[in-house]
Amino acid sequence: MSLTLFIGNKAYSSWSLRPWLLMRALDIPFTEVVTPLYVDGSRERMLREAPTGKVPVLRAGDFAVWDSLAIVEYLAEAFPDKNIWPRGKENRARARSLCAEMHSGFQALRQACPTNFRRARRAAPLGLEEAARADLARVQAIFAQAGKSFLFGDFCAADAFFAPVVSRLDTYALELEPAARAYCDRILALPAFRQWREDAKAESWVIDRWEDL
Amino acid sequence: MSLTLFIGNKAYSSWSLRPWLLMRALDIPFTEVVTPLYVDGSRERMLREAPTGKVPVLRAGDFAVWDSLAIVEYLAEAFPDKNIWPRGKENRARARSLCAEMHSGFQALRQACPTNFRRARRAAPLGLEEAARADLARVQAIFAQAGKSFLFGDFCAADAFFAPVVSRLDTYALELEPAARAYCDRILALPAFRQWREDAKAESWVIDRWEDL
Ligand SMILES: N[C@@H](CCC(=O)N[C@@H](CS)C(=O)NCC(=O)O)C(=O)O
Ligand SMILES: N[C@@H](CCC(=O)N[C@@H](CS)C(=O)NCC(=O)O)C(=O)O
Repeated sequence: MSLTLFIGNKAYSSWSLRPWLLMRALDIPFTEVVTPLYVDGSRERMLREAPTGKVPVLRAGDFAVWDSLAIVEYLAEAFPDKNIWPRGKENRARARSLCAEMHSGFQALRQACPTNFRRARRAAPLGLEEAARADLARVQAIFAQAGKSFLFGDFCAADAFFAPVVSRLDTYALELEPAARAYCDRILALPAFRQWREDAKAESWVIDRWEDL
Repeated sequence: MSLTLFIGNKAYSSWSLRPWLLMRALDIPFTEVVTPLYVDGSRERMLREAPTGKVPVLRAGDFAVWDSLAIVEYLAEAFPDKNIWPRGKENRARARSLCAEMHSGFQALRQACPTNFRRARRAAPLGLEEAARADLARVQAIFAQAGKSFLFGDFCAADAFFAPVVSRLDTYALELEPAARAYCDRILALPAFRQWREDAKAESWVIDRWEDL
């Protein structure tokens, strides 16, 4: 089965990073197609792939799966040996709860610290409001559960889902507890994560409203 | 395995309705615990069940799954014979794409037409802005695919995920294409859906900011 992953600019597209990182880290082969976001025709181009017009989209033959979370579940069914979800029904349920929490939450932190893989490391000019600080506290509690490895032992979908948050914490130089810091360092050191950042730096597209912060 | 589902007030809690309706419609036995939303102590009470402090939460013995989508996946693993997801990997991926789309999207429509199962059927006072109209168009396209049955034949998680939207379309008297209208009528006629609405009408808690629209 030949897989194609449609993603946005690596500099900004946090949702695209999730399945990309998962597939790269777990050695699932795919072709990547980058469609720069918010330029003339990009929405129309993505609407040809999936009905939301958003990235990421995974194409398997002439079949398309859209939305990062549905893509992960599709891959988990297609590659049962890759342990995309951790072993054990309770750990799987916990990992899915965390991914779903990420998928629908952390809006305050996401808004205060937009993903930008090219931004020089420095604090957010306005600091963090209370809601964003609450998000940050919750993220640190989640990261602390990783102990000396990833969230559920081996790298899995839950780690991929939180990887863009790791990038934000790093980019905006947020102060972290030691356990959360150690987890972030582990993600930042992943070869696949470093590759994504290198690719982002090589891109020339610029979206002004994400460069002001 | 004994299951307990923690939900919010039935009048307003659209996220709670999703797993509740799925379990009732598919005859999965559970105990329900209602915690009224946004009153003193309700968040603290839910924080004892799950780290987000939100409903729904499913407790299986002393294990908790939080977030509607993770609950659905947990149930799909626990009850493989119930066909919580449709048969066939492509239909499953489509159903999950739709649920994920709902889980993270349709904000404009949700904001313009908040869930309120006790509200008398009438239009939203301010009408719908462009973004909400785009959401409505997408919802109708999704509902139209149901043909003469549910979204994927038998009632499944995707139908449960869109049921609160059906309630909104009905409550705010939005004009629908015939195919979408027919799908809505099918959901509105479900005994489990009608039960939820009756329970909502019997509740006495009132949240003012959701009563103004
Ligand atoms: N819930 C979706 C979110 C996808 C999303 O919002 N993608 C953004 C880029 S990160 C996008 O495509 N934006 C372009 C647009 O909305 O037109 C997912 O998890 O895949
Ligand atoms: N993404 C969550 C959303 C849960 C949610 O927002 N629940 C609302 C009620 S519908 C809630 O608990 N609000 C109370 C609060 O935020 O304190 C899910 O799908 O379960």
